[in-house]
Amino acid sequence: MITRDKVGRVTTAPTHERLRSQIEFTLEIDKLKRILRRNTLVDGSRRENDAEHSWHLGMMALVLGEHAPPGTDLDKVIAMLLIHDLVEIDAGDTFIYDTAAVADQAERERAAADRIFGLLPEDQTARLRALWDEFEERRTPEARFARALDRLNPLLANFHTEGGTWARHQINSAQVLRNVALIAEGSETLGAYATELVEQAVAKGILAP
Amino acid sequence: MITRDKVGRVTTAPTHERLRSQIEFTLEIDKLKRILRRNTLVDGSRRENDAEHSWHLGMMALVLGEHAPPGTDLDKVIAMLLIHDLVEIDAGDTFIYDTAAVADQAERERAAADRIFGLLPEDQTARLRALWDEFEERRTPEARFARALDRLNPLLANFHTEGGTWARHQINSAQVLRNVALIAEGSETLGAYATELVEQAVAKGILAP
Repeated sequence: MITRDKVGRVTTAPTHERLRSQIEFTLEIDKLKRILRRNTLVDGSRRENDAEHSWHLGMMALVLGEHAPPGTDLDKVIAMLLIHDLVEIDAGDTFIYDTAAVADQAERERAAADRIFGLLPEDQTARLRALWDEFEERRTPEARFARALDRLNPLLANFHTEGGTWARHQINSAQVLRNVALIAEGSETLGAYATELVEQAVAKGILAP
Repeated sequence: MITRDKVGRVTTAPTHERLRSQIEFTLEIDKLKRILRRNTLVDGSRRENDAEHSWHLGMMALVLGEHAPPGTDLDKVIAMLLIHDLVEIDAGDTFIYDTAAVADQAERERAAADRIFGLLPEDQTARLRALWDEFEERRTPEARFARALDRLNPLLANFHTEGGTWARHQINSAQVLRNVALIAEGSETLGAYATELVEQAVAKGILAP
């Protein structure tokens, strides 16, 4: 049976073999729902997991897209955000202020990308891996905007949970402002907004100066 | 200050006023993470919530898109799936086999859509509401494919958790096959696959005939 892949290329692999791999991948990524992040939900009730976090970032791209540089492909940003944390199924969540864990993070995550994207049919492995690499390399407007949302999200959560991870891990405003710089790289407006939030957080006493 | 919205129209609302509404919406939808569905994660460890479910459906659209009818706009499908359950923040999750709850579901969900999408700037309220209405009406290939994934997902979860909600709520194969019909409406291949799964589930004794 002749089938066509998403971009219309004819592929000789039978549909059921492709589908089998795709379903296997679909079941495997369910594990992302069990990878916990450091921050909590906005109501503080429990820690957030990577899957719901990825959904939230996709929604942020949908409603904050106008603050990306003109011409940014927002559909690509959304796809990037949906897949960006899949590697944490194997590599775990790395707390951005944990210097030791950050050191070998890239290596652990590359091995995870090989295994997880490798579950898919070859053409899809290549396509999703390229998207994840693009996100990691942060050279395109899409990758920079996706990263900006990924950094803005916990800042919002911390601001609205009386300091959240900042308070629990003794993070100060200088450390947070290094992340805000990444937000500004992806979106001038959101960078300015994040800077304002940090100033307000310091003024409110929920973030050390 | 003159700004442009996502589709490039000039809007006279100042950026900061739009941004304020968008951030308020972003914080409000965090509540979707606390809306629990009937089914569990694939490992059976706990019930799934709407936010992580929506992420999973977005991922399914990304990897199963080739099984949609040719010409289906998959980016639109993904956006639809990200927002499709937001109304449950107010209306709650309605179990598809709960006839009483299904009766006034549409009304409860419309009121929720008014409030939740209404938090956004007007042009975005209209855009997301139209997308949600399209999903609900199931008249376009995008809406039908999105619905097919929304129905396939719990079927997969139940199959891989020894019957899951089927077993707990005494659901039989005739009831499940009515949902499979919705899958086939959105994707011939996925409909055939789902039918096979139901047959296998009955043969394995994890679904009543």
